[in-house]
Amino acid sequence: MWIKKVKLGKRSYDIVVGRNIISSLGACIKKLDIGDHAYIITNSLVKMKYASSITCALKKSGFSSTIREIPDTERSKSIAILSAVINDLAKSDLRKRTFIIALGGGVVGDLSGFVASIYKRGVAYIQIPTTLLAQVDSAIGGKTAVDLKEGKNLIGAFYQPALVFSDVSLLKSLGIRQLRSGLAEAIKYGVIKDKSLFTYLEKWFKDILKHREAALEYIVKRSSVIKADIVSRDEKEEKGLRTILNFGHTIGHAIEAATGFKKYSHGEAVALGMLIAVEISQRLKYTSQGLATRVEALINAAGLPTRISGTSLRSIINASFRDKKFIGSRNRFVLTTGLGKTKIVENIPLRIIEEVLKGRIG
Amino acid sequence: MWIKKVKLGKRSYDIVVGRNIISSLGACIKKLDIGDHAYIITNSLVKMKYASSITCALKKSGFSSTIREIPDTERSKSIAILSAVINDLAKSDLRKRTFIIALGGGVVGDLSGFVASIYKRGVAYIQIPTTLLAQVDSAIGGKTAVDLKEGKNLIGAFYQPALVFSDVSLLKSLGIRQLRSGLAEAIKYGVIKDKSLFTYLEKWFKDILKHREAALEYIVKRSSVIKADIVSRDEKEEKGLRTILNFGHTIGHAIEAATGFKKYSHGEAVALGMLIAVEISQRLKYTSQGLATRVEALINAAGLPTRISGTSLRSIINASFRDKKFIGSRNRFVLTTGLGKTKIVENIPLRIIEEVLKGRIG
Repeated sequence: MWIKKVKLGKRSYDIVVGRNIISSLGACIKKLDIGDHAYIITNSLVKMKYASSITCALKKSGFSSTIREIPDTERSKSIAILSAVINDLAKSDLRKRTFIIALGGGVVGDLSGFVASIYKRGVAYIQIPTTLLAQVDSAIGGKTAVDLKEGKNLIGAFYQPALVFSDVSLLKSLGIRQLRSGLAEAIKYGVIKDKSLFTYLEKWFKDILKHREAALEYIVKRSSVIKADIVSRDEKEEKGLRTILNFGHTIGHAIEAATGFKKYSHGEAVALGMLIAVEISQRLKYTSQGLATRVEALINAAGLPTRISGTSLRSIINASFRDKKFIGSRNRFVLTTGLGKTKIVENIPLRIIEEVLKGRIG
Repeated sequence: MWIKKVKLGKRSYDIVVGRNIISSLGACIKKLDIGDHAYIITNSLVKMKYASSITCALKKSGFSSTIREIPDTERSKSIAILSAVINDLAKSDLRKRTFIIALGGGVVGDLSGFVASIYKRGVAYIQIPTTLLAQVDSAIGGKTAVDLKEGKNLIGAFYQPALVFSDVSLLKSLGIRQLRSGLAEAIKYGVIKDKSLFTYLEKWFKDILKHREAALEYIVKRSSVIKADIVSRDEKEEKGLRTILNFGHTIGHAIEAATGFKKYSHGEAVALGMLIAVEISQRLKYTSQGLATRVEALINAAGLPTRISGTSLRSIINASFRDKKFIGSRNRFVLTTGLGKTKIVENIPLRIIEEVLKGRIG
């Protein structure tokens, strides 16, 4: 079993990556001494596919478990669902020492992590990501949150899991759109930190879209290493290091918001956001035309969108002002200065952002 | 202005204590560089009395502010109110850098601190406690929470304020029952950590109940020093040091729960819990009969209850099993081994707890 450690002092934890490793889950958790009862939060589809093998693996190591289903939609990241889950958890949590398992994609992971962070002022939790996007990105690093009407992820916590358990065999039934969404985040890691990952993706993206486990395992491992190292150095996004993970996300979030979180998946919006960020980088002479062309070619080949539709320039700009990544009234972008390299630039003239956006709309 | 620092590395903050110091509030906040807009959470009574002088003091230093009222009841510590406040905060928080001010007693402080901890994954907040209980205890140390049907404080966070601003002149209109409630927590500090505070209280408790500012200031300062030092050494109650602050609280909480959080104020329940804890200490030969008599005499003289009514032994025991302070199926009590000294004892025979409780019921 391949292991990458996220080094955070006493909050350190392992990311385990492998194929068909569920049977060893119980033994992995046993070592952590985090409790004896697992409260598993998941959605109905994932439950149907994997709940029995997970509970078996837990039972083998002496853990009892409860399964709590939440609807399989971004709307599950709401205060209403949060409140329902926590009330249910409190009711079922009488005498045993309970920990939480997030079994699912980004929605389940973000909600479950937040539940774990606030229940009894913090109980342990484990991420078992079942989407490519969650395995390469969202399950790692302890960013947890739910949405408000006023914006995505507006309430949450930095709260690290006790373990991230990424079994790429759990990805075999993912739809193509979900694979593409995860691929977008992997492309992000290539652009911001790892030229060789980017060239790997250029060469092998088809294997990923065909669920080839060797390719999936490679990108999950590479992405895990990159994210773990960044999170270790800047857990709470205070030193400007973790900020680079927001590459493509400032405009990406705004596009998601402007289209009501319906038209584009998170990965698709990030793909669009990355294109905008690369083009702004080029406009400001941080990088060459060549890079923009190459990033667009990969995004396009992967079947991710390269043009924005169903919204207007004004809606996107307005939505971006609500984003946490805008500090006060100033803007702040992660740009690239070449494959694997980034630069954080503040107060980019609104005119430039608008011009680049305009070129991608319609 | 008297200042005590809570030392917690980069999360360190000052507790400021004084009389008629509101006019210097703005200058104190200015130094912290935590934002330019104050979102003040308070209740209607406190708002009527102090909101205008607070907003004036803020304005003098260039801070704008918004006031948000919550109902003046423990029920404000609910997910419903939490959700309403956060939605309102998100709506009003557009371009400015916002921090939160908790202006009120324990309910306002616990809720506001929790709002601050989760809004945008954490914004700065300031405690301006307006009850004696909040000044001596709950405003310090970063324990924030709201209640669930299943139990008090079941969701929350350890999240430190940027400043605790205790103006004892704000206590002048407090009712006698609220003063007594704060006095109970001060007695707690005397028993667990400070013999001289205890003897001070024996001598001067009447001055406190008469709102004499010299006496109020003395106990707020002493309690602040004790709590600050404990919190500095064990911020998240992981090392067993902070645990001693729960003296009287295990049974106290159970008594509150068993009486539906209506009959006894928190301080009154803690007074009863302390009596039980001292008697258990004596039964287990950790302390002498003399101490129990002395603690009971002070509690009684202060006008705090010494007998439990309106509930049954069974209800109290059942409620205690739901308490966070019970770890798994074991119990855990903070006992005293003499004035100013404590001992944490686990797995006390239920029979002894029941016998001591029985002697106080009815």
